[in-house]
Amino acid sequence: MRIATLRTNTGTQAIIVDGPTTARTIEGFSDIGALLNDEQWYEVLLDVESEQFEFNPEDLAPVIPRPGKIICVGLNYAKHIREMGHAQPEVPTLFIKFPEALIGPYDDAEVPEFANKCADFEGEMAVVIGAPARNVAKQDADGVIAGYTIINDFTMRDFQKQTQQWHQGKSFENTAGFGPWLDVDFQPGATLTTRVDGEVMQLDSTGDLIFSPGDLIEFISRIYTLQPGDVIATGTPEGVGHAQDPKRYLRDGETVEIEIDGLGSIKNRVKFV
Amino acid sequence: MRIATLRTNTGTQAIIVDGPTTARTIEGFSDIGALLNDEQWYEVLLDVESEQFEFNPEDLAPVIPRPGKIICVGLNYAKHIREMGHAQPEVPTLFIKFPEALIGPYDDAEVPEFANKCADFEGEMAVVIGAPARNVAKQDADGVIAGYTIINDFTMRDFQKQTQQWHQGKSFENTAGFGPWLDVDFQPGATLTTRVDGEVMQLDSTGDLIFSPGDLIEFISRIYTLQPGDVIATGTPEGVGHAQDPKRYLRDGETVEIEIDGLGSIKNRVKFV
Repeated sequence: MRIATLRTNTGTQAIIVDGPTTARTIEGFSDIGALLNDEQWYEVLLDVESEQFEFNPEDLAPVIPRPGKIICVGLNYAKHIREMGHAQPEVPTLFIKFPEALIGPYDDAEVPEFANKCADFEGEMAVVIGAPARNVAKQDADGVIAGYTIINDFTMRDFQKQTQQWHQGKSFENTAGFGPWLDVDFQPGATLTTRVDGEVMQLDSTGDLIFSPGDLIEFISRIYTLQPGDVIATGTPEGVGHAQDPKRYLRDGETVEIEIDGLGSIKNRVKFV
Repeated sequence: MRIATLRTNTGTQAIIVDGPTTARTIEGFSDIGALLNDEQWYEVLLDVESEQFEFNPEDLAPVIPRPGKIICVGLNYAKHIREMGHAQPEVPTLFIKFPEALIGPYDDAEVPEFANKCADFEGEMAVVIGAPARNVAKQDADGVIAGYTIINDFTMRDFQKQTQQWHQGKSFENTAGFGPWLDVDFQPGATLTTRVDGEVMQLDSTGDLIFSPGDLIEFISRIYTLQPGDVIATGTPEGVGHAQDPKRYLRDGETVEIEIDGLGSIKNRVKFV
């Protein structure tokens, strides 16, 4: 089942997505973040009896508009680690993106003039938490995962690298496509493809993560509690523009599409503002 | 004026702190984060007419229990930069702590057994945002600052340094003392002192920041919007345990006190759990 957050004239609304443009309202929940904070969220979904309606996919909001935490994982695909010149890690590298960075799955990514020289894409599979998780062992992690979605860990490479800490290049407002929906049945292992104006840039299996979703939840939940609606962006495969020769940064008007087989795709046009 | 968040039998309550143990209720607001999200928060304070009551300082909660963002600044005092072996920076180094890390101003800091070898203190002045701030110039920053408070950017040095990114060592649950109150009249420039069991470890002027609160707000608000209740921890002066020779990490039962002249102090006992 796929669930999403739709923009309407009266605010956002949580929906079940039945087809490309058909959905049903999840009554009583304004977005998927609010839904996941109901302990009975899965039962709520099974009980939805509202009528199908037509929606415009461009009205989809970030699937969780304001996650409490967006924890990004660096260096989690072996080939990407080599292309960036790093050694194979023993523990996950974690950094943070704020909700202000999120945009809907088909919204424009806004790149401000002062930071438009080194804009880059990072196609990623994202895990969404569905229950409070503290000290959760790897083998129990499935019980706290609500499902999977797609995120573009959009990055200004110059800002990322001008200090030792990457955060400032990773959290520019209105840059990171997120969605289109949360798939509560999806299992990692499918192929992730990132295209810029149709040209394939990244192509790898989401099953080839060095740290699996279970590894990440075990590691992170020993440090702090993961809450429903929190997001773990699991890292990007090789092929980012920064690692190409010559470096290939995003230009005004280009469209970044990130697709995960069986999960769907997000498509965001780069707009220099 | 000093305002704080008090734990009561029926949840938390925003208060005006009139004296060491006397306060008045700010009716209608459960904590200082909720208060600051009212555009008229300053007028609300001026209109408080409730009666004074006695409170127990140990019942003070983190002054803002769940900030939307806690942005920490690394390397912002010249002498601390030298002791950590870094070059003088041209832009601020930013990393993130999550609200789960916060504890009240007199609560115990909980250090789990698997991470108790390199626990360290970082006494800091924190700026709290009082109005939405996007592309705010340095000279206008005072208009979006609600006031100042104290934070211990409590750090597990081994976790901070086992990857390139510091976040995982900076956000352990229930470690970072925060408060005791928000002082809406305070101005930076006073002396910050950190003591461990009474022994002075850090002593510097909060006026000696390389990047002032105004510089930080200008820099950050170009990247994303700062919201009311967001926190900027402005960095720590020299004297952290990790930089001492020999290194001097925190032990079970030791008490860390961070004092800023004219602002107050927080006092948190380290508890190995």
